[in-house]
Amino acid sequence: MTHRHPLRVYWEDTDAAGIVYYANYLKFVERARTEALLAAGIRQTDLRARHGVVFAVVEARVRYRSPARLEDQLVVTTIVERVGGARLELRQDVTRDGETLAECLVTLACLGPEGRAARVPAEVRAAFGGGR
Amino acid sequence: MTHRHPLRVYWEDTDAAGIVYYANYLKFVERARTEALLAAGIRQTDLRARHGVVFAVVEARVRYRSPARLEDQLVVTTIVERVGGARLELRQDVTRDGETLAECLVTLACLGPEGRAARVPAEVRAAFGGGR
Amino acid sequence: MTHRHPLRVYWEDTDAAGIVYYANYLKFVERARTEALLAAGIRQTDLRARHGVVFAVVEARVRYRSPARLEDQLVVTTIVERVGGARLELRQDVTRDGETLAECLVTLACLGPEGRAARVPAEVRAAFGGGR
Amino acid sequence: MTHRHPLRVYWEDTDAAGIVYYANYLKFVERARTEALLAAGIRQTDLRARHGVVFAVVEARVRYRSPARLEDQLVVTTIVERVGGARLELRQDVTRDGETLAECLVTLACLGPEGRAARVPAEVRAAFGGGR
Repeated sequence: MTHRHPLRVYWEDTDAAGIVYYANYLKFVERARTEALLAAGIRQTDLRARHGVVFAVVEARVRYRSPARLEDQLVVTTIVERVGGARLELRQDVTRDGETLAECLVTLACLGPEGRAARVPAEVRAAFGGGR
Repeated sequence: MTHRHPLRVYWEDTDAAGIVYYANYLKFVERARTEALLAAGIRQTDLRARHGVVFAVVEARVRYRSPARLEDQLVVTTIVERVGGARLELRQDVTRDGETLAECLVTLACLGPEGRAARVPAEVRAAFGGGR
Repeated sequence: MTHRHPLRVYWEDTDAAGIVYYANYLKFVERARTEALLAAGIRQTDLRARHGVVFAVVEARVRYRSPARLEDQLVVTTIVERVGGARLELRQDVTRDGETLAECLVTLACLGPEGRAARVPAEVRAAFGGGR
Repeated sequence: MTHRHPLRVYWEDTDAAGIVYYANYLKFVERARTEALLAAGIRQTDLRARHGVVFAVVEARVRYRSPARLEDQLVVTTIVERVGGARLELRQDVTRDGETLAECLVTLACLGPEGRAARVPAEVRAAFGGGR
């Protein structure tokens, strides 16, 4: 299952080289993760309030293949690679007209109240296709 | 004429006080300006390439009335207050469910190739209701 | 009393127009406020933990006079204009080699636990020259 | 040779989880790269004007080990792993009191006028210990 999140490149995203600043791709893929959860009816605000859990990125890897520019219409595609007990691995690509501009691999840890590893909530597991 | 631009609050927009960081409202209203122009068929990339003009903010004033939070769905409303020869004055409010969270007044200058004041292009004038 | 905070312009601060993005001046002046408090031995983290208070910007006004560019060395000057019971008014200018690039007027409210107006703590009052 | 760049965590860097937002570590390490070049007398603005070259990140990998928080004093350490003909590989760690909070591996490409691979300028090569 692939989630698709469209977004526009604004002035805030660009830098003096005339292209999207490299750190901002991590913002784009985070937006896509939040929207993928919301599309499944899951608010992180609720996860935190009810279960005391948050997701923290433990590793991110980005390959930058081609630059995005002001006013570009982009799409972030999100694929769940693996749902572990307390971890999620996602493949998130930033694309423009079907061309991949940046490839991201993101590993998230589910953390409980004191920052300890916690089990991925069942609803997230269900939404992200990771079985029970 | 009021332009409405919807947007979501993501993690990147928030700060350790649990609310949207104050500078980010200026990002929100810039996105709305770009979308208002695009809705009228105007790309700033083209304005710059064809006319050599860019818009620069010369004054911004923001009143912060109530905070926005993670996952909030916001709407930026943009009203053109005045279109001068080389200036635009906009009223841009950031709202949530009809409540105004922040009120912004933004004055933009139209700048030509060497950063000198330039006439607001006719198509922008037409789009923003400023006569010919 | 004028507090001076030096800072460098990095790629993250610039946009595709080749200059510092307008919202980022509000980041620069916030850094200067935090450093001005730290120079007086005041950590906002402590203010929040001990007194339950945070400072929230209620109004910001920026006049952009001249652009800053990549690698520029800037200085933010901070002057306390007024210390009220629950408010602070600051004048913060962003300068380069003595030239003022942006003038900011910022009004902060001191907020207590439930977001209600709270008295500016005595140590902040003392640091910012507002009497007892 | 290790370059050390100190920096403070400000409100802009944090998010609603009370910690530094994950994308901002890429900002921190970029600041350190710019400062490492400036410490060697190299301005990227000059490199671009004189040689027509810019550095573009082609790959970034970050391992997040422990969170940074508001007002933390951090140090980015930068080590040149490899200087190739048209590439640089850097190891950049974000540390606090000697503890590594995030480990970054960054590969940069030197790009010429049309975005083609270009030879790393001799002065950068010399500064980064890559021989002539």
